[in-house]
Amino acid sequence: MKPSTDWNGVLRTDEQRMPWWGWGDESHERVLSPTVEARLVDLLGELGHPEPPVPLESFQAPSSRLGSDAIAALTAAVGVGQVSVELRDRVLNGAGKSYPDLVRMRSGQPLTLPDAVVAPLDADGVAAMVKVCVELNIAVVPFGGGTSVVGGVEAVADNHTGVVSLDLRELSGAESISKIDLTATIRGGTRAPTAEAQLNAQGLTLGHFPQSYEYATIGGFAATRSSGQASTGYGRFDANVLGLEMVAPTGTVRLSPSPGTAAGPDMRAACVGSEGTLGVITAVDLRVHELPEVVKDIAWVVRGFEAGAAVLRELEQNGCAPDVARLSDEAETEVSLSMAATSFAGRVLGSYVNRKGRGIACLLITGFEGDPESVATRIANATAILRRAGASRVGTAAGKAWRKGRFQGPYLRDVLMERGLLVDTLETSAPWSGLSKVHQEVSQSLHSSLAAHGGEPIVMCHVSHLYASGASLYFTFIGRQPETDTEARIAVWQKVKSDACDAIIRAGGTITHHHAIGVDHRDWMNAEIGNSGVGMLAALKRELDPTGIMNPGKLIPPTPG
Amino acid sequence: MKPSTDWNGVLRTDEQRMPWWGWGDESHERVLSPTVEARLVDLLGELGHPEPPVPLESFQAPSSRLGSDAIAALTAAVGVGQVSVELRDRVLNGAGKSYPDLVRMRSGQPLTLPDAVVAPLDADGVAAMVKVCVELNIAVVPFGGGTSVVGGVEAVADNHTGVVSLDLRELSGAESISKIDLTATIRGGTRAPTAEAQLNAQGLTLGHFPQSYEYATIGGFAATRSSGQASTGYGRFDANVLGLEMVAPTGTVRLSPSPGTAAGPDMRAACVGSEGTLGVITAVDLRVHELPEVVKDIAWVVRGFEAGAAVLRELEQNGCAPDVARLSDEAETEVSLSMAATSFAGRVLGSYVNRKGRGIACLLITGFEGDPESVATRIANATAILRRAGASRVGTAAGKAWRKGRFQGPYLRDVLMERGLLVDTLETSAPWSGLSKVHQEVSQSLHSSLAAHGGEPIVMCHVSHLYASGASLYFTFIGRQPETDTEARIAVWQKVKSDACDAIIRAGGTITHHHAIGVDHRDWMNAEIGNSGVGMLAALKRELDPTGIMNPGKLIPPTPG
Repeated sequence: MKPSTDWNGVLRTDEQRMPWWGWGDESHERVLSPTVEARLVDLLGELGHPEPPVPLESFQAPSSRLGSDAIAALTAAVGVGQVSVELRDRVLNGAGKSYPDLVRMRSGQPLTLPDAVVAPLDADGVAAMVKVCVELNIAVVPFGGGTSVVGGVEAVADNHTGVVSLDLRELSGAESISKIDLTATIRGGTRAPTAEAQLNAQGLTLGHFPQSYEYATIGGFAATRSSGQASTGYGRFDANVLGLEMVAPTGTVRLSPSPGTAAGPDMRAACVGSEGTLGVITAVDLRVHELPEVVKDIAWVVRGFEAGAAVLRELEQNGCAPDVARLSDEAETEVSLSMAATSFAGRVLGSYVNRKGRGIACLLITGFEGDPESVATRIANATAILRRAGASRVGTAAGKAWRKGRFQGPYLRDVLMERGLLVDTLETSAPWSGLSKVHQEVSQSLHSSLAAHGGEPIVMCHVSHLYASGASLYFTFIGRQPETDTEARIAVWQKVKSDACDAIIRAGGTITHHHAIGVDHRDWMNAEIGNSGVGMLAALKRELDPTGIMNPGKLIPPTPG
Repeated sequence: MKPSTDWNGVLRTDEQRMPWWGWGDESHERVLSPTVEARLVDLLGELGHPEPPVPLESFQAPSSRLGSDAIAALTAAVGVGQVSVELRDRVLNGAGKSYPDLVRMRSGQPLTLPDAVVAPLDADGVAAMVKVCVELNIAVVPFGGGTSVVGGVEAVADNHTGVVSLDLRELSGAESISKIDLTATIRGGTRAPTAEAQLNAQGLTLGHFPQSYEYATIGGFAATRSSGQASTGYGRFDANVLGLEMVAPTGTVRLSPSPGTAAGPDMRAACVGSEGTLGVITAVDLRVHELPEVVKDIAWVVRGFEAGAAVLRELEQNGCAPDVARLSDEAETEVSLSMAATSFAGRVLGSYVNRKGRGIACLLITGFEGDPESVATRIANATAILRRAGASRVGTAAGKAWRKGRFQGPYLRDVLMERGLLVDTLETSAPWSGLSKVHQEVSQSLHSSLAAHGGEPIVMCHVSHLYASGASLYFTFIGRQPETDTEARIAVWQKVKSDACDAIIRAGGTITHHHAIGVDHRDWMNAEIGNSGVGMLAALKRELDPTGIMNPGKLIPPTPG
């Protein structure tokens, strides 16, 4: 099952590496359609001229701090050809895909770079290289798909002698799949599409489709408590982790899957979400699902975000929630609509929105998956509830358009960044009773801190995950970026981001619903789980990684308090 | 909402204390019906003469090790009248309800007794008394309902100067209930029926009904990762914990409920199941459920345990599993039937069992709860699957009989113990693909180790919790007890228990599905979660309870390995 890899970065098509300066497939078209550009100009004023990323030759890259002894020791641990100090490899594994990551990488001014990229062939190789790094006091940054948008793969050396990027590409494929138990054991470095293809071949699915799906890995999903577009139906990734193997400096943690147990606190949950700070997840035992026979996407227009949230609550609490549920607020509906104005779906939608009232109407995409009978029953029940709440069914075109473009968002961001805009997303969740407050206060914070840098920004939001007790909120914001200097640009972003994070916590939301903590949210961890909670994490770190080499600078604040 | 309590042990009816020598309501009738006695004699041979428990006056009780200074300090922390060194209080809080607990308590030879019973009035009082215990190096054993069957409330002093039982009776009632969010915050010492009554008054339910329901507490459910008879439908207790407050020696851990979060490893899950070894859970934020409008119990007879398990798997994986599912194996079906032979339900059942083949047929109780429409749909879908698998519907009498008697098991155990029998239960879970192996190997182990002490034993089993990936197995065993001396009796039990635990681990089961670890399962924790997993628990303990005063001797093995 192991894919053949060429260490110089040429992998199988579905495992291509992303360019350092942007998202996804390097050859993917990145243009701003005239409609969208015109609309953005309407909203934000004139855009900047395209600023292409600098070539690799122009990178301001520090040379590798690792001497030939260290490289030899690492090579002995993982095999010849599995260690690279080439600039290209160091740059490709040098950052994730957050706004500050891309601002820096586009300008060839990386904050840091790993001193080497090491790709062990299997879990034993991971353990061997971690052992070398303990001995030589080298920091280790696990690298799966490199899709982090919170600084999760930043090559922080901290007080260590250097830092290596532990590339998990070779740990690919399913170790076992059980159709009887609906479970699978999948290696940590397996890209989601690879895992999905192996499962699909047996009539199964992970049901896990975050926007990072095409590049992210199974180990990365577990390490960051990922959540995907269909997680309302299939469950968050963490809820599907039954067991795992995690290589830590003091030993390998093996927690076998059990359907249900009362054997003490769930240590699986203490590893899941640890973002490489306790160890590196080399295999995950997962609950998998029957591949759905039918998938029905239906779009609706509801009168207002609050009314839409109320009906989603009713659907979820009555057991007929769709597997995919995506409710755009008034602003997001308006922007989506104006950008899709020339398409058929856009025109159909527009007529419904006009009927409900422009600026009031909100778009709701629902997706129902499963066997034909249960999908039909669920749609019938959901339709009754939606209609009672005054929702209008818009048909299937908008839903299809959403599904078709659902992994495309990051490409658009690249284009907007190229035109000098500040563009980012952030997300939270809140109880139903507090959802509106969080929505309002975070929107307001983003609005005012972006407006402080000149001009009206675009701030929009959608609900994308439903729980019995509440829902997620996903904010997208686009504003003017007044600065041209790399670090000055990041400082502008940092202020907007910090204000929004403070607003989330003040309003009663969680600091992150599915992007994880990384570097960017670390300062809010004490607010999130208290000093005692942070102390518990720090204690686990001391136990599993006493010299602190595992992914320094992420997740756990330096000192509780 | 706080109930009025009389510290001399007279509490509200629903919060009565259990007698030290047995289960439940002291005045409950405890007699062996002639039918059941005759059947037991058939199976096991002549029973012993009734051996009543010794009176309190005959107890071999060590005097309290706590001096007047310690008592004064504890009283200053929790208030006058909230600290007792009376023998009766020490005995009532001196043990749980395991077989060894009851053998010892019935003979007036407790293994240990707490030196005092302390009942703080609120969470601040808990923190204050824990502080005193840290200062004076006194061990603290949290005591909720006292229903542990694994030694969870054993008054182990370890290397401390004494041990107090921290009685949570005063921390009773709901702090808040949200019908919008379907959540409730409930104090740790609240008995399940009290919580349920408060929720029922608002049309809500916990949906949590373990056999200990009438006495167990909300904090205890969280501390032990409890699972109840309807947990297939409503979820295990741990799955319904959204947040909690836990007072630990180094501070109070407060983890607020979030509908969904990716903010690092889930520290809630590191507290849930900690069995008082990290701290004491003073409040729990819970997901609650709409009170079902209808409850339909339907009994079935299936041809064989394996066939029954296969159809349960199909029901669960197809989304039409009943909320309550209880499949008895051939032995349990045969015993239930012969004991119920004179009742109407028993006769109806008998005719169906005879049709399928005695010794082959297995009884399956299913319970469906919810609104009329969804229950009807689920029953229709389940019925189609069950009929296709050759199950016969037996009607509602057997189901009703099960529901009526579902909290009565422990009373029967008291009676059997009084007649000198060795009687106990143990439980595990396993993947569907390994369920039959675990069932066979554990049954065999119990059979042979009990038979080694003379005569054919009764060993029976049922499935009671369904998961997508597997199911629980609950074993009940009754055998001859050849010894008369208290500790010799316990040694016989210990051998049977140890062999069964070894068999569970060997066959691939978990050491406990819902009874928790306590003292009795601690030696299997390394097998369950590995030395690294145990090391993680020990690290959390060092962080939250550096002097080791919290519930010593439970859950965490002394040294990893």
